[in-house]
Amino acid sequence: MAKTKKEKEPKIKIKKAKKGDFDKIIDLVKELAAFEKLEGPDDIAVRRLYKDTFGKKRLINMLVAKEGKDILGYAIYFESYSSFLAKKTLFLEDIFITQSRRNTGIGKLFFDRLIEIANDMGCGRVEWAVLDWNIDAIAFYNKIGATPLSNWEYYRLTL
Amino acid sequence: MAKTKKEKEPKIKIKKAKKGDFDKIIDLVKELAAFEKLEGPDDIAVRRLYKDTFGKKRLINMLVAKEGKDILGYAIYFESYSSFLAKKTLFLEDIFITQSRRNTGIGKLFFDRLIEIANDMGCGRVEWAVLDWNIDAIAFYNKIGATPLSNWEYYRLTL
Repeated sequence: MAKTKKEKEPKIKIKKAKKGDFDKIIDLVKELAAFEKLEGPDDIAVRRLYKDTFGKKRLINMLVAKEGKDILGYAIYFESYSSFLAKKTLFLEDIFITQSRRNTGIGKLFFDRLIEIANDMGCGRVEWAVLDWNIDAIAFYNKIGATPLSNWEYYRLTL
Repeated sequence: MAKTKKEKEPKIKIKKAKKGDFDKIIDLVKELAAFEKLEGPDDIAVRRLYKDTFGKKRLINMLVAKEGKDILGYAIYFESYSSFLAKKTLFLEDIFITQSRRNTGIGKLFFDRLIEIANDMGCGRVEWAVLDWNIDAIAFYNKIGATPLSNWEYYRLTL
């Protein structure tokens, strides 16, 4: 029986990143940095990122959106903490979907998985930051029921 | 030889919190929550906070400002991460100095120590959040050379 086009299309799945995914993820990290008009990781930072993801002492976790062998997006998260809740928070450091595949439900797939992971970890919250001009992302975050921490100002000391 | 008044005064020292400091720290955590007009930890959360600070699987680190046996302030921090730097960040979850001892240099002592710790950890940044009406704290953060991440909006999903 001939398969219909729909049946042949590989489904998008959110998976834990593997070492073999790393080069494609780095392309996406650089695409995100360019999109955000920020400095992405240089070659030395890319090597640290690999070690911090796949090495003996892991500092971060990476998810990828896979369609067959293609990687359409990635997310980086780690564990932070709320002292008033006295619970872990899942902090979403990066979430990015390649330009050509925006608004196709991949962001929702990522958040569904992240919420699942956060619940398994015993987290009370998922938190992340978005650039204030990124109105498409902001509209999506509002749609999924997230709340802007509007009366908080974040501060940084660069060492 | 009689000691002068100055010699008798115990100096303020920033130290790692000990189990015996915990009850006094919780008083300060609750003082901070009241100051921020937020819900502080309830009794069950306080027990989790103790376990997450002093238990087998430590999630957070606490510092205290001690003057003799008195605890004048506390700081809670943990390790977060910057994907673009590919370096750890020291995230300062709480810093609080009891009302009567504000503007006496204790905040500076905390930051000096936190920067020292962050450098030892190999961090690229120290980051934290402040309520936008807390103008005394904001003036202090600006004075020590910190930068507000003004074009970032932080988002939260409560689980």
